[in-house]
Amino acid sequence: MSKEFTAAMVVIGNEILSGRTQDKNINYVACKLVERGVRLIEVRIIPDVEVVIIDTIQELKAKVDYVFTSGGIGPTHDDITAACVAKACNGVLEQSKEAYDILLGYYGAADLTDARLRMAQIPVGGSLIPNPVSGAPGFVIDNVYVMAGVPRIMQAMMDHIAVGLEGGDVIHSRSVSSVLRESVIAHDLGMVQEKYVGVDIGSYPYFKDGLLGVNIVLRGSDMDMLSAAKNDVIEMLDRLS
Amino acid sequence: MSKEFTAAMVVIGNEILSGRTQDKNINYVACKLVERGVRLIEVRIIPDVEVVIIDTIQELKAKVDYVFTSGGIGPTHDDITAACVAKACNGVLEQSKEAYDILLGYYGAADLTDARLRMAQIPVGGSLIPNPVSGAPGFVIDNVYVMAGVPRIMQAMMDHIAVGLEGGDVIHSRSVSSVLRESVIAHDLGMVQEKYVGVDIGSYPYFKDGLLGVNIVLRGSDMDMLSAAKNDVIEMLDRLS
Repeated sequence: MSKEFTAAMVVIGNEILSGRTQDKNINYVACKLVERGVRLIEVRIIPDVEVVIIDTIQELKAKVDYVFTSGGIGPTHDDITAACVAKACNGVLEQSKEAYDILLGYYGAADLTDARLRMAQIPVGGSLIPNPVSGAPGFVIDNVYVMAGVPRIMQAMMDHIAVGLEGGDVIHSRSVSSVLRESVIAHDLGMVQEKYVGVDIGSYPYFKDGLLGVNIVLRGSDMDMLSAAKNDVIEMLDRLS
Repeated sequence: MSKEFTAAMVVIGNEILSGRTQDKNINYVACKLVERGVRLIEVRIIPDVEVVIIDTIQELKAKVDYVFTSGGIGPTHDDITAACVAKACNGVLEQSKEAYDILLGYYGAADLTDARLRMAQIPVGGSLIPNPVSGAPGFVIDNVYVMAGVPRIMQAMMDHIAVGLEGGDVIHSRSVSSVLRESVIAHDLGMVQEKYVGVDIGSYPYFKDGLLGVNIVLRGSDMDMLSAAKNDVIEMLDRLS
């Protein structure tokens, strides 16, 4: 088994915490990381507060291989992510020539206002992440990838990042759905889990059309073991039906 | 201004971190807390790993007035939340007579299997949170509210909790939408924010039908100040259009 690569995500945004907006970025990042063999081990949603952003990024960047942030890199007064990431990485912001040129090309000289130029402020030593939607780039510094919060832009940035991301064994998943209730299968499912140590078996009840059922999800990097475990689960469900 | 009440939420679930499932509980909890005058200051999504759950709950319960968890209280092997919360609160699990009676009434004596009885294991000193959907209750111990992960059940539990939750001043919000781009309004919006210290002004760009626009959201407990700030924003947008 190869080295395991881990990641954390930090969603920066009062609008998610206040309930005004439903996050749409976490699931996208989670799915991209699975494809690359990187395990997302934690997500935090935090407010636009400088000390919280800095502390959170410092804590997580020491803990995982990759930290991804979304939100707070626009031109307005509440966009403080770049400055906070710079501080969390013991660095400073400066105007990036490369980012300046991108913004100049996108807006034109006449419309390159001070507010827009704020988006060319990148921590020294950072590399840009292209933004094909609206010009202003994200950036990566150390192991911290800083992306926009608008889902369409975040997705384009994440697609770009994912291509070059080093990962380990890809974790595959198999799922089996059943109209049996979770409590009916609990004992026997636990025995299947004990038999297959290399497979992570999760049981997720659902509620649909007034009925409870369960999705059983098996995850692991060894596809033969995964198939064997899935067959055991199917046999078990047949037996209990 | 009354005391401020704060909350954190812990979503316990490998299925969210693996991208298999999109969380639907955070936004519901966030909205309920706003209604009650409680400020959600952090959300964490963590895996079904005992030490992570215990550490996270211990850290957050010391930091905020209320901690809400979702997920991991069913009958299967991967449902370890109740045991972890007990440990995080320096307590132990035991079979709750009240929870037992609820499960007995729901399933009947013949079908009250060992797996189902697991759901009557509640930390000593905890109080039950009713589950009108599928019997098995959640519980509250210290300042930690433990809810199911299935959205329909979580919502019913949260509705029940919210009624009795002590909160502070309710934070109201006003929003103004504009087809102007964020970078056009950034400077003047910053000036409005400086003028109204008691109002939290956020700027949220959106991307729709190929165009970028911006939602400006004003939040605060003083409705007169909120209205005045909103009028300033509207005047500003008219001026810049």
